[in-house]
Amino acid sequence: MGLIPAAVERLAAEFGRLPGIGPKTAQRLTFHCMRATPESTAGLAAALADLRRRVRPCSRCYFIAEGDLCAVCSNPSRDQTVMCVVEEPLDVLAVERSGEFGGLYHVLGGALSPIDGVGPDQLTIDALERRLDGGEVREVVIATDPDVEGEATAHYLGDRLASRGISVSRLAHGLPAG
Amino acid sequence: MGLIPAAVERLAAEFGRLPGIGPKTAQRLTFHCMRATPESTAGLAAALADLRRRVRPCSRCYFIAEGDLCAVCSNPSRDQTVMCVVEEPLDVLAVERSGEFGGLYHVLGGALSPIDGVGPDQLTIDALERRLDGGEVREVVIATDPDVEGEATAHYLGDRLASRGISVSRLAHGLPAG
Repeated sequence: MGLIPAAVERLAAEFGRLPGIGPKTAQRLTFHCMRATPESTAGLAAALADLRRRVRPCSRCYFIAEGDLCAVCSNPSRDQTVMCVVEEPLDVLAVERSGEFGGLYHVLGGALSPIDGVGPDQLTIDALERRLDGGEVREVVIATDPDVEGEATAHYLGDRLASRGISVSRLAHGLPAG
Repeated sequence: MGLIPAAVERLAAEFGRLPGIGPKTAQRLTFHCMRATPESTAGLAAALADLRRRVRPCSRCYFIAEGDLCAVCSNPSRDQTVMCVVEEPLDVLAVERSGEFGGLYHVLGGALSPIDGVGPDQLTIDALERRLDGGEVREVVIATDPDVEGEATAHYLGDRLASRGISVSRLAHGLPAG
């Protein structure tokens, strides 16, 4: 309508790029930021910059870490012989919430999806195999999502890890879909 | 749980401070930002900073403006004799969408709510009266929200503007509640 300054349109567009944020919500958030104190929007901007500067994938398991290793990989009291393979960092939190797992994780970074151009090389499967080459892990639990891509990924991993002489199992519907 | 780096918790807390964003959504947005390209989160941070630097309330009507005056106040073809009084900048957009109003606006910045400490001095009512002192406006349409605070504000304004010899009317339920 030309009534809204470009800087406002731009922020609404940026909010609208976030997943699950529609145009209406983006507009509402934008107007909230205009009304909010400078400190509060500065807090969001600083937290975004901080995230980029200080947080990266764990160099071992690809969960999130503030240093080189994540809190799981740097905790010697975790069971080093069991590994749970998940798609995304959020899945690690879901498994942790269950309180039933005390081992290590490996975050694939997604699931196989040829139609989206995601093959084995786009996931952290090579890194997973290098970890297993270390020999300490004796059991792998595959906890990819219970959807088509997650199942395909679980099957692929099952085949690829079959010759290693370690236990490979599939965690069936163990994670809530959301 | 101590698994999540402080910088991640901080961003989730900042997202969670936004209206309508619950803890689950805040976490989802945070993890999205970690996966997103640096450019895309930098875009959001820059848009937030830009908003603060470049956008301010219109010095006349308190709608949003990139310079001194907003797009409505700086448009000489708007009817300078009719003024629509609304609570928030978003309400201006709602009225504009109706396409039925070609006059000026005045944004109060809220509605009277003694329980929240919002009295007449917390709204832009003095500025409204100074605009009316100019003498050009002959009709005021009060389009505050159709809730308790909005009705109270409309009544208060009706009384306060009664002695001016201008037409003061209430736009009843003309704005969608959302």
